Amino acid sequence: MRKVDPVKHEQKRREILQAALSCFVRSGFHGASTTDICAAAKISPGHLYHYFPSKEAMIQALVEMNLSHAAARLQAVLAAPDVIDALVHELENTSLHQPQAQMLSTEALAEACRNPDFAAIVHAQTCAMRTLLVEFLVQAQQRGEVDAGLDPEATANLLLAIVDGARALPIRNPAVDIPASSAHLRIMLRRFLAPPSATRHTAAHT
Amino acid sequence: MRKVDPVKHEQKRREILQAALSCFVRSGFHGASTTDICAAAKISPGHLYHYFPSKEAMIQALVEMNLSHAAARLQAVLAAPDVIDALVHELENTSLHQPQAQMLSTEALAEACRNPDFAAIVHAQTCAMRTLLVEFLVQAQQRGEVDAGLDPEATANLLLAIVDGARALPIRNPAVDIPASSAHLRIMLRRFLAPPSATRHTAAHT
Repeated sequence: MRKVDPVKHEQKRREILQAALSCFVRSGFHGASTTDICAAAKISPGHLYHYFPSKEAMIQALVEMNLSHAAARLQAVLAAPDVIDALVHELENTSLHQPQAQMLSTEALAEACRNPDFAAIVHAQTCAMRTLLVEFLVQAQQRGEVDAGLDPEATANLLLAIVDGARALPIRNPAVDIPASSAHLRIMLRRFLAPPSATRHTAAHT
Repeated sequence: MRKVDPVKHEQKRREILQAALSCFVRSGFHGASTTDICAAAKISPGHLYHYFPSKEAMIQALVEMNLSHAAARLQAVLAAPDVIDALVHELENTSLHQPQAQMLSTEALAEACRNPDFAAIVHAQTCAMRTLLVEFLVQAQQRGEVDAGLDPEATANLLLAIVDGARALPIRNPAVDIPASSAHLRIMLRRFLAPPSATRHTAAHT
């Protein structure tokens, strides 16, 4: 058995995932073949197998990477002086300002409608992301920064829906006014999430 | 030239569109062929041509049918005693309770990312739908039923995003608690849209 340098192995693994990501963006999850990914990562199919046994394993690894980033970012949001403001900023960054995420998430949802294996990956990723958001909301409620009357699970679902919907906006209208949409997203979520003790009315023009 | 009975022609046209819709739901816009649609509509390809010159013409006709329904429904919303309540009900009906619309709209967005002709159809449909929503919001603002401080165009974009996001929810999580999500959608939109003169705070548990 050949000797594996764990640092080099991890570095190569990341390179392959980056190559896979660019193939998925270009051709979709269904359209991108492992042959395409090998070519983009400059690696032979036999060599790829040392890192990932299948295309699904690469998608799974990308999902896990994404979830661990999201967990870290939600921790940072909780540490911000204005939690709702920081949350909206985070939601904008993962939706309105992310053409790659817009295309991949749209593609993933469409693929989930037709492919049960892919649907299972999307369901698990959604469940993990919702759990992160629920934990975040419960902590923010305990600190009095989010309305304690809101159900954390239902609120987390709405936040997930808002990210998906905001990702669809620039696909629906490439000329969409992003700053105006951001400003109104901010007004909507502040009015929705702020505790009743805070000034509920957030002026529309700020 | 053969004589055409306009009533029969219109009836057959609707039957073909229904058959096309079920093919699109089953196989996607890209996957469904005119051959499939002819089989479902029990019509020969030569006969189909008397009604629709191409698959794109059928998609276009479905989009137009959908827009004219939406325009009529928004008029009905404006006539309701509680406009915000009726609007939320309408948004729920076209998203959370519509498995067919969930799949078709997800598929249309994914197809728009890869096919410029299809993207043009989605852009035109979005623009027409946004125009309807802007007209609706301006009228509701003039009557004091929606916060006059909100920009109608940016608010319409958010409503479009919410419909797309709510359509993605049951795809992301088939076990999603639809009544709880609906209730929170209602709270969010009432807090967002209600004029400052109205009680801004909508209790979370109603």
